[in-house]
Amino acid sequence: MRQSQLFTKTRREAPSDEVAKSAQLLVRGGFIHKEMAGVYDYLPLGLRVLKNIMQVIREEVNKIGGQEILMTTLQDKEVWEKSGRWDESVVDIWFKTKLANGTELGVANTHEEPLTALLREHISSHKDLPKYIYQFQNKFRNELRAKSGIMRTREFIMKDMYSFSRNEEEFKEFYEKSAEAYGEIFKRLGIGAQTYRTLAAGGSFTSGLTDEFQTICDAGEDTIYIDEEKKLAVNKEVYTDDVLKEHGLKKENMKEARAVEVGNIFPLGSKYSEALGLLYKDEDGSSKPVIMGSYGIGPGRVMGTIVETLADDKGIIWPEEIAPFLLHLVALKEGAGDELYEELVNVGVETLYDDRTVNAGEKFADSDLIGIPYRAIVGGKNREEGKIEVVKRSTGETEFKSKEELIALCGRTTIRRSS
Amino acid sequence: MRQSQLFTKTRREAPSDEVAKSAQLLVRGGFIHKEMAGVYDYLPLGLRVLKNIMQVIREEVNKIGGQEILMTTLQDKEVWEKSGRWDESVVDIWFKTKLANGTELGVANTHEEPLTALLREHISSHKDLPKYIYQFQNKFRNELRAKSGIMRTREFIMKDMYSFSRNEEEFKEFYEKSAEAYGEIFKRLGIGAQTYRTLAAGGSFTSGLTDEFQTICDAGEDTIYIDEEKKLAVNKEVYTDDVLKEHGLKKENMKEARAVEVGNIFPLGSKYSEALGLLYKDEDGSSKPVIMGSYGIGPGRVMGTIVETLADDKGIIWPEEIAPFLLHLVALKEGAGDELYEELVNVGVETLYDDRTVNAGEKFADSDLIGIPYRAIVGGKNREEGKIEVVKRSTGETEFKSKEELIALCGRTTIRRSS
Repeated sequence: MRQSQLFTKTRREAPSDEVAKSAQLLVRGGFIHKEMAGVYDYLPLGLRVLKNIMQVIREEVNKIGGQEILMTTLQDKEVWEKSGRWDESVVDIWFKTKLANGTELGVANTHEEPLTALLREHISSHKDLPKYIYQFQNKFRNELRAKSGIMRTREFIMKDMYSFSRNEEEFKEFYEKSAEAYGEIFKRLGIGAQTYRTLAAGGSFTSGLTDEFQTICDAGEDTIYIDEEKKLAVNKEVYTDDVLKEHGLKKENMKEARAVEVGNIFPLGSKYSEALGLLYKDEDGSSKPVIMGSYGIGPGRVMGTIVETLADDKGIIWPEEIAPFLLHLVALKEGAGDELYEELVNVGVETLYDDRTVNAGEKFADSDLIGIPYRAIVGGKNREEGKIEVVKRSTGETEFKSKEELIALCGRTTIRRSS
Repeated sequence: MRQSQLFTKTRREAPSDEVAKSAQLLVRGGFIHKEMAGVYDYLPLGLRVLKNIMQVIREEVNKIGGQEILMTTLQDKEVWEKSGRWDESVVDIWFKTKLANGTELGVANTHEEPLTALLREHISSHKDLPKYIYQFQNKFRNELRAKSGIMRTREFIMKDMYSFSRNEEEFKEFYEKSAEAYGEIFKRLGIGAQTYRTLAAGGSFTSGLTDEFQTICDAGEDTIYIDEEKKLAVNKEVYTDDVLKEHGLKKENMKEARAVEVGNIFPLGSKYSEALGLLYKDEDGSSKPVIMGSYGIGPGRVMGTIVETLADDKGIIWPEEIAPFLLHLVALKEGAGDELYEELVNVGVETLYDDRTVNAGEKFADSDLIGIPYRAIVGGKNREEGKIEVVKRSTGETEFKSKEELIALCGRTTIRRSS
């Protein structure tokens, strides 16, 4: 894409109403726009990143058998009454609305109830199990405060997956598989090294512990204790001698850190299947409630966390798998990059071409801010016969590369991308 | 995908609460699920179709310069008060909700106001124009009645594009370009022959006429008059002698038909740019309001219309570009298709493999209902040495093809698909 055509502009100054570094950088770079506290639009560059994050998650979740659907935002109160979660004294972050005839509706904050109800039409026998169903769907949570940019919002896309199994054993098998898939996802998203499977409180669904995935980050809301060697952490809320002992952890090996919860997986047991009547006939002819699990990742929060974690003082640094473009072609003389740009696009290299008529300093500053992994500079003074100057954003390293080498460097992940 | 793994099941009987043929077939085939009147989930097969429809639209809209964004469902009342559209006596299909502190919020029914407000940060000079911005975003409309399945819903994804131009001339140029793009979209979606650019009333934005795209369909809510030769129609609401004369149409050539509005394009003039202060500095230094236009297509309604229009008495017939899979591999003996299935998947043919242990009659009935363009039958009695029996769903034609011929037939559109 030609940068002169992109409708967004970068800003020098951070918006005064954003506290989080990630929100400041994302607004300055033209990735997001704030509609109100906790409610953000994704602009062209931001939407490309968001879609790439979603695609990485989708690929890994499909690998373990996930089937993608898309449920609705408007929800029927009836299914929530059955589980006891309609009442605002039980769930205090509801947004609700009304049909023209006065009937109250829920504005989705999660989807256990409607999905469980839906599955009554498709699951009746042990032969129909297990099944793993997920979606990327908007969630709405009426948070009292929302001030961490896209890391804690009132409206956000969530990858929520639900597992439906015959028994605890079958459930547990998938639960561990999904934990591995989550590890792979965060690795591909570029925050694998900073992200820990973390023991946490189980909430109301289970008496045991559940798992969060926590990324080390100063702006995080959680405190965790990490055993580096075992690559395992414990959330402060369950950091007791008993828990440590049970999991073979020793206090002297645990390191305290601030962290952001980027994902979670937890058992739901038969809470919803019993409340909503999702039963199956087992081999012995008996009727049993389906055993469920829940698996969430918020792509927007992940995006914020990646910026928060990887940015430097010049701007954002996108990991290659999710960058809005792989190559930023910067022309220091008008038209100097036109021919190369056409060629790159033709061979499928995702290129943002800075063809604007602004000075080199402004172009480099914007390029650092936007954070595309590789920058190719043409029309400048820094030359080598038949070669192109290529700067790696994450390290600042400069190399001179032939066109073919540049294409080999930036052509590799383009096919799977959607936009 | 193996059909034995797919969590949805087909149904023999049409649901009693669906009137529209398309809704009956889509529910029976396991494409959609009704949450309540006018509110539908997309199940795996349905979501694949929906995404394919969206991808066709995206490709054509990108070609004419569209830039994709994603705005929010929750909306700030303030921008709507500025345009005078917050009031329910002006817009009678609002869903509204409230923040925890009592502040009223809109649940998006359209996005002119917030997008116009957003662009004040990015458009200030004539050099910033024209721009074309679109999204696929949920819209919520509090319709009193909703009973045409996914053809008229209370919650739906909309491709809404908005153009921002310097003047009427620049606007008109893009308007015609977008009309051409719409023609191409409906052609690719398989309803080109039945879809007419249709003169319609302009609403409150313009004194002139606007354009709808209407697809002939008995279940449609509109009446139009068509000049077949000119490939142009007139909506009944503006079917007057003056309009006919102005557009060189003659009453004796016009044929009456029922139709569904699958898209529309219309001028917005400076209504929103003036209300929200989206001004630009022209070359002569003067400050002028941006001239806007609006361009909509509802992928869900299009999906319903395609089913309504192309289905036969055995079930759905999907056009190739948007089919959930291109090939339905049906094994009449257990395991008979396993090897071929693996091969097809490896070379990228999107295949639904019916590996279930049900009888041939049920498999064929389900295959007809689901409507995948080609069916390959293996393990049956109908044989030709080294060949596979291939049935085309739309015509019922049977041919025997080699594996290579089958791959050539069904391999062609797989790369661009997203899921």
